Amino acid sequence: MTGVLLDDAALDYAKGHGTGNDFVILPDPQGRLPLTPRLVAALCDRRRGIGADGVLRVVRAEAHPDAARYAGEAEWFMDYWNADGTHAEMCGNGVRVYTRYLVEAGLAAGGEMTVATRAGVVRTVVGPDEIATGLSKPRLYGQSVARVEARRYVGESVDVGNPHLVCRVADIPALAALDLSTSPEFSDADFPAGVNVEFSAPAVPLPGVDLHVRMRVYERGSGETLSCGSGACAVAAVALADAGLSTGRVAVDVPGGRLTIVLDEEACWLMGPAVIVATGTVDPGALDVRLPDVDSREAAA
Amino acid sequence: MTGVLLDDAALDYAKGHGTGNDFVILPDPQGRLPLTPRLVAALCDRRRGIGADGVLRVVRAEAHPDAARYAGEAEWFMDYWNADGTHAEMCGNGVRVYTRYLVEAGLAAGGEMTVATRAGVVRTVVGPDEIATGLSKPRLYGQSVARVEARRYVGESVDVGNPHLVCRVADIPALAALDLSTSPEFSDADFPAGVNVEFSAPAVPLPGVDLHVRMRVYERGSGETLSCGSGACAVAAVALADAGLSTGRVAVDVPGGRLTIVLDEEACWLMGPAVIVATGTVDPGALDVRLPDVDSREAAA
Repeated sequence: MTGVLLDDAALDYAKGHGTGNDFVILPDPQGRLPLTPRLVAALCDRRRGIGADGVLRVVRAEAHPDAARYAGEAEWFMDYWNADGTHAEMCGNGVRVYTRYLVEAGLAAGGEMTVATRAGVVRTVVGPDEIATGLSKPRLYGQSVARVEARRYVGESVDVGNPHLVCRVADIPALAALDLSTSPEFSDADFPAGVNVEFSAPAVPLPGVDLHVRMRVYERGSGETLSCGSGACAVAAVALADAGLSTGRVAVDVPGGRLTIVLDEEACWLMGPAVIVATGTVDPGALDVRLPDVDSREAAA
Repeated sequence: MTGVLLDDAALDYAKGHGTGNDFVILPDPQGRLPLTPRLVAALCDRRRGIGADGVLRVVRAEAHPDAARYAGEAEWFMDYWNADGTHAEMCGNGVRVYTRYLVEAGLAAGGEMTVATRAGVVRTVVGPDEIATGLSKPRLYGQSVARVEARRYVGESVDVGNPHLVCRVADIPALAALDLSTSPEFSDADFPAGVNVEFSAPAVPLPGVDLHVRMRVYERGSGETLSCGSGACAVAAVALADAGLSTGRVAVDVPGGRLTIVLDEEACWLMGPAVIVATGTVDPGALDVRLPDVDSREAAA
């Protein structure tokens, strides 16, 4: 007997991550893949699928209706989907992993390049270990309060395209002791659409950077995560402001690794490792093997 | 420029699951792969690796020192590793997924066959959708008490090769309402090596089975899981005993799907779906990109 491991409908994929923020990458240069929210959610299911924080479809800008207008500026469009099958406009770690894939797959030469996203065209710079993505500069615009276990933290409200509240913590033991198993409380009036709450503590000086901090983050809709690119940018901007600086270089240790943020006059660069761990083929038919819908059957019984 | 997605040291792998209990499968017929606890843990890392509950190495019994004595009874040895890099003797869902892989990869013909494990040779039967594994019969040997949120549940102590405490719950809403985010309390005197605690509620009658129950499980060392094969066997044995039966067929709905347990005079058969979702190659070098050991560095600073 000859086995057939995966059937003809199998899809090529790669899996990669940047500081623990992980993605299923689907090469689809001509935009022919009928990607649906259900398929995205099934691919991202960590036990019954491949498992990831999101899907990055690799499609030529000219071949996708959401990106055709960028085709003169960027060859490739990052069609980004959250693990729940919804779209997100941007994901800083996603752009870094996407760029790494383009280079390793031979689809881009590396060096300085552009990538189209639903939030516009972003610049990336590929180094041997790290990949940098240029994001818009964080904007500090006020203060608000977070509460964790009845303790009150006054923090800075920061807009990085998405909302953040950066709270300072005295030192690393205090940061490690925070219970982020549930969401910090915050002001609904200040953040009607929710907010990502970061906690930041000073870390030992490092050569080559102006500041070094460690952070933890509770992401709206996700809980505590290993890494949040825009959150690291917000934390770096607050740390620089606290030091009386408007530009500079900050090492930000997230639970998943180290990001380096470079704030210059025009942009905020998010730098860090991005790796492709595996490649393969996945059988969409096998993803359909899910739990029987016993609840609805029993409700009807 | 031509990219090199994965380097020469890349390993072949497959990913599969049985009712949400998932595994990385490593084909290694001649037993040449230098598998280490560190590599296993890196492969099972859900964000920086492939992600799984464990690794199943596919090796010929004659080619592995732990299984050579079984080579006359079984061609293949399931070299099972937990996600933390330790060995476990047996895993019922693992045997089902392992068998599915053998058949789909063309390494076994299907039908009735044997697989060597560290707990001895087990029998499997391959059907079109379901795969059955023969396990030793659960042994009910006493009662003990579990506590969840200050509520006391008297349960049956059951030995299925590993220890279980099966607690009855009145109905499915009561089962769904249990808070299993932390371990139920149990008697250390009764279970000095810990225990897997199951909660079981009656479900609507189903054609083709004697009993139908739904369960949730808190596994020692893992927390609440989507599926536990030996736990389902323990729950079925208690349900049959409660009905005055010593043999019979029980549908057991776990959070990850439906298992069917058949208890006969000699054995306990664990039946259910087992699927291979994806195949591919993984780069062990890329798995080494992990978080910088900032803690130890800072402690030394």
